[in-house]
Amino acid sequence: MSRSLYPVISIEEAWQRIVSVVRPLPPVALPITEVLGHVLAEDIVAVENMPPFRASAMDGYAVLAEDTSAERRVVGEQDAGRQKPLRIEPGTAVRIMTGAPLPEGADAVIRVEDAVEGDGRLRFSAPASPGDNVRPIGQDITVGDTVLEKGLILGPAEIGLLAMIGHTKVLVHPKPKVAVMATGDELVPPDRTLAPGEIRDSNSYAVAAAVEAAGGRSVRLGLIPDNEAALRAAILEGVSRADMLLSTGGVSMGVRDLIKPLLEKLGTVYFGQVAVRPGKPLTFATIKGVPVFGLPGFPVSSLVSFELFARPALRIMAGQRKLWRPEVPARLNHPIRHSPDRTEFQRAIVALRDGEYWAETTGVQVSGRLKSLVGANALLKLPAGVSEFKQGGAIAAILINQAEVS
Amino acid sequence: MSRSLYPVISIEEAWQRIVSVVRPLPPVALPITEVLGHVLAEDIVAVENMPPFRASAMDGYAVLAEDTSAERRVVGEQDAGRQKPLRIEPGTAVRIMTGAPLPEGADAVIRVEDAVEGDGRLRFSAPASPGDNVRPIGQDITVGDTVLEKGLILGPAEIGLLAMIGHTKVLVHPKPKVAVMATGDELVPPDRTLAPGEIRDSNSYAVAAAVEAAGGRSVRLGLIPDNEAALRAAILEGVSRADMLLSTGGVSMGVRDLIKPLLEKLGTVYFGQVAVRPGKPLTFATIKGVPVFGLPGFPVSSLVSFELFARPALRIMAGQRKLWRPEVPARLNHPIRHSPDRTEFQRAIVALRDGEYWAETTGVQVSGRLKSLVGANALLKLPAGVSEFKQGGAIAAILINQAEVS
Repeated sequence: MSRSLYPVISIEEAWQRIVSVVRPLPPVALPITEVLGHVLAEDIVAVENMPPFRASAMDGYAVLAEDTSAERRVVGEQDAGRQKPLRIEPGTAVRIMTGAPLPEGADAVIRVEDAVEGDGRLRFSAPASPGDNVRPIGQDITVGDTVLEKGLILGPAEIGLLAMIGHTKVLVHPKPKVAVMATGDELVPPDRTLAPGEIRDSNSYAVAAAVEAAGGRSVRLGLIPDNEAALRAAILEGVSRADMLLSTGGVSMGVRDLIKPLLEKLGTVYFGQVAVRPGKPLTFATIKGVPVFGLPGFPVSSLVSFELFARPALRIMAGQRKLWRPEVPARLNHPIRHSPDRTEFQRAIVALRDGEYWAETTGVQVSGRLKSLVGANALLKLPAGVSEFKQGGAIAAILINQAEVS
Repeated sequence: MSRSLYPVISIEEAWQRIVSVVRPLPPVALPITEVLGHVLAEDIVAVENMPPFRASAMDGYAVLAEDTSAERRVVGEQDAGRQKPLRIEPGTAVRIMTGAPLPEGADAVIRVEDAVEGDGRLRFSAPASPGDNVRPIGQDITVGDTVLEKGLILGPAEIGLLAMIGHTKVLVHPKPKVAVMATGDELVPPDRTLAPGEIRDSNSYAVAAAVEAAGGRSVRLGLIPDNEAALRAAILEGVSRADMLLSTGGVSMGVRDLIKPLLEKLGTVYFGQVAVRPGKPLTFATIKGVPVFGLPGFPVSSLVSFELFARPALRIMAGQRKLWRPEVPARLNHPIRHSPDRTEFQRAIVALRDGEYWAETTGVQVSGRLKSLVGANALLKLPAGVSEFKQGGAIAAILINQAEVS
C-alpha cells in the first residue's frame, strides 16, 4: 500500500489534458440509412434544382392565368410522374395532380375545390394569377447552394434532404467504438449467487449503457481478473478493437490496484487523481494513441466520472461541437452539507416550478450507492470551499437527462 | 376527382380518436444488455441486501474503534473478494481494500492516508468511531424494497442496479416496429437520375429516421407503385410485420389517391382530414388492430404529421408516460403572417437569450420545402383565427430537438 504518485489536479486541468490528445475520428462514407445522429463531415452542395420542374402544389387544373374564357375545355390529365405531351392554350385546361409537372403553356393551377368540371368543361369562380399553386423550379434548392453544412447533426429532415438530392452516401464522423472492462476480484457476473465478500459486476453494464446513450457503440470485454497478465491482455485487446477504452476499478491506492502501473508501462498517463467527489482516483492515459479512462470502481463514481470526463471526450471523437450538457441555475428544496475539500457532484431530481428549476437530492450520496443515480436527471455542482448550502439557495445543476425535466 | 368524403376535424379530436385505439405493446422479457431506453413493465423488488456484508468504503485498516492501543499489530490482509478467516481483537488491525468485507470483530476502517505501517506495526493519529468508512449491510438496498418502479425509463444507472441485484432479465415494453412505405408514381429511388416529372423518394428515408429517433424500429417497405394491387399487398405486409404502419402520399383528393379507399376496404378509418397546416389530408386507420397513419406526401407534411400525431402514438405503444415534446413560450425575432383558416406549425430555430426563448422561422414555409425543416429545433404553433403575429410577440414553441436549443 502506498500513497498515490500522482498529484491531485483540478477538474479544469484534467479536462485540458484530455482535450490536448482527443481528436475527432476520421470521416467515413456511410449510406444515408445508417447516419441518423451522426455528424456530417463534408459540406453538401446541390448539383440540381429542386424541384427540377414547375410542379403543381395542389390537385386541380393547370391553366393560363391571363386567359379570360368563361369555360375551358379539359384536354387531358397530367399526373405526378413522367411528363405527358400536353399543351395549354387559351380556352383549355389540364387536370393535374399534386406534384405533377405543369404542361407547356400553363402558368397557374386552379384548386379542385374552386372548380366544377362537367362534360369535359371546366368552370371556376375566382380568377387565377400567374404562379398560383405552382412550385417554381429551384424553389427548394438552387444549383450551387450549400444545402447542408459540415458539422451538422443528421436528423430525419437532413436525411430526407440527402435522399431528395440523390446523395445516398455521405461522409460522417463514425460513432466511436468504446471497449468496456470491469476489474475487481470481489466481482462476479450478475447471474451468480453471492458468496460472502462477493459483489455482482454492475459497472460494465452501466458504463456500456452510458456509452450507447452518449452516441457511442460499446464493445464488452467483460469482467477481468485482478492479475497483471489478464489485465494487460484485456487492455491491449481493448485499444486494438476500439477507439476508446474504459476500465472500472483498480485505480485506488491498494496493492491490488494494478491499472495505473499497467497504463504507465503500456502508454502515457496524463493524470491519476482529480479534485472531484465522486471520482478522485480517475486516471487518463493513451495507449497507441487510443484514449483510456481508468474509472473508479464504485458504481456511482464510475458513472459520474464517465459523465464529467469520458462523455465529452467521446463527443469530440464523434465530431460533435456541443460537448457539454446544459447547466442551469436551480434552487434547493432542502439544505445540503458537503465536505468542502473537493468540488462534489450530488445526484438530484430537478423539476420546473413557476419557471424556475428546483432541485432535490436523491438521498444518501455515498459512492457505492447506485440508487442515488436511479431516476436522477441532474448533477448538482457543490463547489469546494463551501460546506453548507441553504434551502432556497441557488446552485448550478447539470441536466444529465434533459428529456425528463418537467 | 372528388371532394373528400371525410369531415375536417380538429387536432384535439384527431388525437382523441388515435388515443381511443392505440395501446402499449405487451411486455416482453429482455436481457439487461438490450433494454437501454425501454420502459420497465414490472416493479423490481429486492430479494437481498446491498451490500450483503459490512464492506470497507476505503483502502485502509480494519480496527475495533473502542480499542485504545497506541500501536496495533497487522494480523493479515483482506482484499475485495472472498472473506478470509481473520478476526480483530484489541491491539490488532487488518489491512483492508475498498469494497472488502470487514473481518469479524472490526467495526471501523482507518484510511491509508491517516496511518503509518512499519515492521508489521500500525500507528495512526486520529481516533476512530464505530462505523467510520464502513458501508453497513443494506445501506444501498434492503430486502423487500421496490428498487425500480414500473413505468421507469431504463438508463445506465437503472441497468447497473439490475445487474447489481442479479436481475439479468426484465419485463419491458418492446420498441415498436414501424413499417414505412412511400407511394407516388412521380417518385424514383434516390440513386436515380431524374427524368422530367420525376422526384426522388425522400419520405421513406426521413420518416424511417424519425421512427428511429422516436425510439421505434423501422421496417422499410420501400417505394410502392400507385396501383391498388401493389398498395394492398404492401399495406397487408406492413400490418403483418410491424406494430404500426406509416405510408406517405396518396391521401389527397386526386383520382390516383388510393390510400383512403384501400384503408376503408381493409380496416377502419377513424379520420381522413384534420384542420392543421401542414398535414390536412392526414388519415388514421386500424387494420387487424394495427394502427396505420396515411401521412401526406409532401416531405414537410409527412414529417410534421409524424411529429404531431404518429410520434406520441408510438410513445404510447412503447409504454412511455410522457408523450409530448416540451412546449415553451417563445418571442418572435420577426413578424409572421399566416393563413388563419387552420392552426399552422411553422418550422423555426429557437435560441435562449437572457433567459427567454426567441424564435426565427426557417424561411419559406411551403409543404414541399424540406429545407424548412433542416436545422429546425422547434415548431411554432400559429393558432387558427389570427393572421398576424408581431415581432417580439409571444407564441407557443414545441421543442422538437431539445438538445439543440442553446
